[in-house]
Amino acid sequence: MTTGYFFPHRHILGIDHLSVDDIHHILSTAESFKEISSRPIKKVPTLRGNTIINLFFEPSTRTRLSFEVAAKRMSADTFNISASTSSATKGETLIDTARNIAAMNPDTIIIRHSFSGAPHMLTRYVDAAIINAGDGMHEHPSQGLLDMLTVLEHKGRLDGLKIAIIGDILHSRVAHSDILGFTKMGSDVFVYGPSTLIPRALDRLGARVCSTLAEAVADADVVMTLRIQKERQNDPLLPSFREYARRFGVTRDVVALAKDDALVMHPGPINRGIELMPDVADSGRSVILDQVTNGVAVRMALLYLVMGNAPVTG
Amino acid sequence: MTTGYFFPHRHILGIDHLSVDDIHHILSTAESFKEISSRPIKKVPTLRGNTIINLFFEPSTRTRLSFEVAAKRMSADTFNISASTSSATKGETLIDTARNIAAMNPDTIIIRHSFSGAPHMLTRYVDAAIINAGDGMHEHPSQGLLDMLTVLEHKGRLDGLKIAIIGDILHSRVAHSDILGFTKMGSDVFVYGPSTLIPRALDRLGARVCSTLAEAVADADVVMTLRIQKERQNDPLLPSFREYARRFGVTRDVVALAKDDALVMHPGPINRGIELMPDVADSGRSVILDQVTNGVAVRMALLYLVMGNAPVTG
Amino acid sequence: MTTGYFFPHRHILGIDHLSVDDIHHILSTAESFKEISSRPIKKVPTLRGNTIINLFFEPSTRTRLSFEVAAKRMSADTFNISASTSSATKGETLIDTARNIAAMNPDTIIIRHSFSGAPHMLTRYVDAAIINAGDGMHEHPSQGLLDMLTVLEHKGRLDGLKIAIIGDILHSRVAHSDILGFTKMGSDVFVYGPSTLIPRALDRLGARVCSTLAEAVADADVVMTLRIQKERQNDPLLPSFREYARRFGVTRDVVALAKDDALVMHPGPINRGIELMPDVADSGRSVILDQVTNGVAVRMALLYLVMGNAPVTG
Repeated sequence: MTTGYFFPHRHILGIDHLSVDDIHHILSTAESFKEISSRPIKKVPTLRGNTIINLFFEPSTRTRLSFEVAAKRMSADTFNISASTSSATKGETLIDTARNIAAMNPDTIIIRHSFSGAPHMLTRYVDAAIINAGDGMHEHPSQGLLDMLTVLEHKGRLDGLKIAIIGDILHSRVAHSDILGFTKMGSDVFVYGPSTLIPRALDRLGARVCSTLAEAVADADVVMTLRIQKERQNDPLLPSFREYARRFGVTRDVVALAKDDALVMHPGPINRGIELMPDVADSGRSVILDQVTNGVAVRMALLYLVMGNAPVTG
Repeated sequence: MTTGYFFPHRHILGIDHLSVDDIHHILSTAESFKEISSRPIKKVPTLRGNTIINLFFEPSTRTRLSFEVAAKRMSADTFNISASTSSATKGETLIDTARNIAAMNPDTIIIRHSFSGAPHMLTRYVDAAIINAGDGMHEHPSQGLLDMLTVLEHKGRLDGLKIAIIGDILHSRVAHSDILGFTKMGSDVFVYGPSTLIPRALDRLGARVCSTLAEAVADADVVMTLRIQKERQNDPLLPSFREYARRFGVTRDVVALAKDDALVMHPGPINRGIELMPDVADSGRSVILDQVTNGVAVRMALLYLVMGNAPVTG
Repeated sequence: MTTGYFFPHRHILGIDHLSVDDIHHILSTAESFKEISSRPIKKVPTLRGNTIINLFFEPSTRTRLSFEVAAKRMSADTFNISASTSSATKGETLIDTARNIAAMNPDTIIIRHSFSGAPHMLTRYVDAAIINAGDGMHEHPSQGLLDMLTVLEHKGRLDGLKIAIIGDILHSRVAHSDILGFTKMGSDVFVYGPSTLIPRALDRLGARVCSTLAEAVADADVVMTLRIQKERQNDPLLPSFREYARRFGVTRDVVALAKDDALVMHPGPINRGIELMPDVADSGRSVILDQVTNGVAVRMALLYLVMGNAPVTG
């Protein structure tokens, strides 16, 4: 950490807005919080009296739970609002919903929304800190950060690593945040997937589009598979699941092309036998559950850091 | 406050049951709690160890959230039960559901139900304090109280004010509680809406039914618009939305008929462009977000006051 | 309690695994916790900093609420995951779901699942304590324990009592846990119901299958009725509701065959007028609401006891 570094962000909207120093600071803060979750009393008073609202317009178990666990371990009060029960169904606009919630004086609003840019828009209308928990096909910054923390813990560094990302890059906010984050930290990101699902502008982000799975994975330090969205089964852009598994599924043979100590990662939930084979998911190479554990720590860090930039009230 | 005044209610079933002194006391208690929500640590230990259950048989985000925020800021433990997940779907009667919940020793049950009188009925079967969070077309007392608090804060008084309420009065428990409350406190309430949606007995409540929008709004201190229920779109009692907006929608021109410093209010969520025009909702006249902020304070006061009348256990 | 007794279980999977000493210990622990729920401040710091997750793959209000109330009264942090919002709908396997949740370091996972044996399976994959809140047609141990606590409180003993259980035994995990528990504690269990819904192997559990309702209920100390599952209305194994009420419904006349001080019990929610007549449910004989109250105490005891066997973390 640079001496005199001060975390400058009031909101966490995307990896795109974070500097290398910011990312280092978030990861080291997360690392220091991680130990709390292994104590018998998993609770520190840091955010006591804080009001943290999970505002989820898309269904989610893991991410919502991870943020809620993180918040309660910091002693914050948490509130869950899901789209199906929200007045969104009564025709209220997102901005009205957010301003109404903001009028109850929350400290932080964690938002997931199908529109890219929704979290950013909210920052113009509410005083609370906004954390993006996934917006459309745009970003999912806490996932990108937990992925970086997991690699950092296992490899001791992020620069100079080869990260292979396999799957539907086009629709994946996880891929987007990971590509931004790992390249920023000095890793080389190689991507491969169905050609219809690889956006053209990917090179501009610093990722290298590969023409074969072998090219992407060869000598990789990390093999990261993306989840295929089953609800998009009839999408003409997508091959059948059987075809997908055959051409893009990460098998033991695929992993064998990577480095001997390569990590296997997946943002979850896994479609076993489609994008990732069960024996690989459960192998010693897999750090998928470490990703989940680190998710709580990263989110504790984010909640803590944005609160440090709360306006002085009183 | 009258010297020696003692808040006499174990339950909050409706504005109808509250005296002028009761309302003054609730509003001044709410006012004193309001500051808690603007602290960095938004929490007082007042209701620590209290069990407060939100029992909602109709979908709600705002009211449920507002009560939950209020309860947690008083350090109570809160529990949410919504109709879709409740054993109501298993054919259990409301009374059985309530008695079962009551057997878990809650201190307060906050109930929303589509049947008018449901909260009152519960008081005969359970020991917990009952707070009505909206019962059918009957009352929504905490909304009436937060509306009064908002007007009181901005006008410094409630007596002698002209309050115009525009919309579907017939189906609105908000309108009912507001008419009862504001007339009780000495305001003059004028109502206007589609003639099929104005109950005949309204005069008996002390409200004056107007025959034109201009008559209702002229020189008003408050212009309160009711939400049109979109789910009732095909109700023959209701004009089309376009027609509704033209004849009953509150525009800048309508507000211009009111006093220069008139307040614009709405219980939310707003149907922008139907009952309330966006430029009015977002104007300096609008105190709609103050209503939301005051909602938390009023509900903190109600939870606190009913607990003061809890039976002594030992 | 035997001197030197030590509660040996890390998980609560079924009554089947509990010894007579274990059951005595759970019931006396529950008895000692019961008083907490009648205090004005219903909260002890015993499980502060504990993370307790309700993982419900079947809809439930009462059992989920009862566990949540129990956990919060012990100062634990609770998290609710219900099937409809879980990534089970995204095709994730139960094991993956559980391992992911476990990676967030919960202390206890309370699981309800439609597959018999699901809780047992989880113990092989996660470090958290597992409490079975109902698995398929297998067991519902906390219900069995609260039933025993209720009888013990009213009768002062469990051995030598005649317990009549009436209804659909075949599909009832409640009946299964009750039969195992009461026979283990020395009661004589008599069962009666539609012949298609009485499993043949029942005798092996120690229960006596009766051929008439009168035989089951005659001189009974407890008349326990099972809930008929309305969603199984068109099941060919089941008579019509009218027919069911006539032949298996517990009426005042049926209860008159039992002992004068016989208790009437039901796991809830009641189908009034089908398996249990309203006048019986609301009579002085009914201890149905005591069952609910005892449910909270039993669950506090279970959460406390499994935590006593948590692995030492450093």
